[in-house]
Amino acid sequence: MNDLYVVGIGPGDPDQMTLQARRILESCDVIAGYTVYAELLRETFPDKEYLVTPMRQEAERCRMALAEASGGRRVAVVCSGDAGVYGMSGLILELAGEYPDCQVEIVPGVTAALSGGALLGAPLMHDFAVISLSDLLTPWEKIEKRLRLAAMADFAICIYNPSSRKRADYLARACTILGEELEESRVCGLAGRIGREGESVQVVTLGELGRMQVDMFTTIFIGNSQTRVIGGRMVTPRGYKL
Amino acid sequence: MNDLYVVGIGPGDPDQMTLQARRILESCDVIAGYTVYAELLRETFPDKEYLVTPMRQEAERCRMALAEASGGRRVAVVCSGDAGVYGMSGLILELAGEYPDCQVEIVPGVTAALSGGALLGAPLMHDFAVISLSDLLTPWEKIEKRLRLAAMADFAICIYNPSSRKRADYLARACTILGEELEESRVCGLAGRIGREGESVQVVTLGELGRMQVDMFTTIFIGNSQTRVIGGRMVTPRGYKL
Repeated sequence: MNDLYVVGIGPGDPDQMTLQARRILESCDVIAGYTVYAELLRETFPDKEYLVTPMRQEAERCRMALAEASGGRRVAVVCSGDAGVYGMSGLILELAGEYPDCQVEIVPGVTAALSGGALLGAPLMHDFAVISLSDLLTPWEKIEKRLRLAAMADFAICIYNPSSRKRADYLARACTILGEELEESRVCGLAGRIGREGESVQVVTLGELGRMQVDMFTTIFIGNSQTRVIGGRMVTPRGYKL
Repeated sequence: MNDLYVVGIGPGDPDQMTLQARRILESCDVIAGYTVYAELLRETFPDKEYLVTPMRQEAERCRMALAEASGGRRVAVVCSGDAGVYGMSGLILELAGEYPDCQVEIVPGVTAALSGGALLGAPLMHDFAVISLSDLLTPWEKIEKRLRLAAMADFAICIYNPSSRKRADYLARACTILGEELEESRVCGLAGRIGREGESVQVVTLGELGRMQVDMFTTIFIGNSQTRVIGGRMVTPRGYKL
């Protein structure tokens, strides 16, 4: 069998990759991924062949990677964060049946909910929901429904893909929906460019969040009803007696 | 300032720790944690002092760790999986104000939703919720409500702490609630003892899951309405055109 790995490389800093991910990338001949992640890896793994395609050609990139593996080369498809959370592992497994001589292994990594959460404090210490605001592949009505039900369930909420050039007002729209269930003073947090140049965090209220402009490299955290600001950090208590 | 780190060590295999976590543990004098995680680390880091307390003494253990750090030693509080997902980072940050000369840094890790998901395939490729069935610190009614609303929102759901000696029927009760919203044939998965001796995965239906006995080292995955079994793996498509 030929090996294809789908590897979550963490938020960006090679230090936040698992030892397993690093060992596997070192063992591979070919690394396939979005341009920006390939550039992050080129410094650490300069001697690999890189198979780079722009956004929006996901199936094509996965087929190219599977074909390379099928040809006998050891291939890693890399994803920022985790391989499975809005990553490429699903698409690879959907397409792998077309390449029966390839064996797919998924290598998990630290997704932005965890790395951004650690920077902010402990926003996801209790039950939580992860929701992407990208409506490229999901109807906006479904995203709205999930936001509303997550707020009703008193989940802490982590929001991925809060913005893009074409969707500048999506975070404001999401905050309006959340604001129908949650108070304006609800503790929220932002983590930007996690593990990369320009990393930043900010703790705000839901009311303030709804009036902010954020870029696509930002991960958003909405506290649950117990979330507080302690020493400048965003903390959702689990409920232990102090 | 004295340094205290809260470190997520991943599922168990030292290979699934991040390089950052490993580097920080190497630099520490004292490692504090539950007995079982301390034992996992002793082989990799034999020369550390271990501060071990049993379950249910969380605040005491955290205060001991903070006091050690306050005394000038470099201390790591270790958590399985991530430091922030049902981990110790929240409690440490709640208590850190009592030790103003300590500086707390949170080091994220691969939580069981990601490591178990990778073993099963790609169950959490789309929006998802993480829910613990432990009612030690959370009223069962709140857990029920979250399960029901998560099912109504069509989230993929990852369930932590599905069982314990005193809560042998909790998974069955959860499946009954989920079954009021979801069809009995809904694709579900189990990942057991991830990254440790005896690691196992199984793909079943919701109906079958409700009749199973699982131990406390099992993580459960409930698919969303699009989740399918592909080549024996549990895959929640993101929606990319093939």
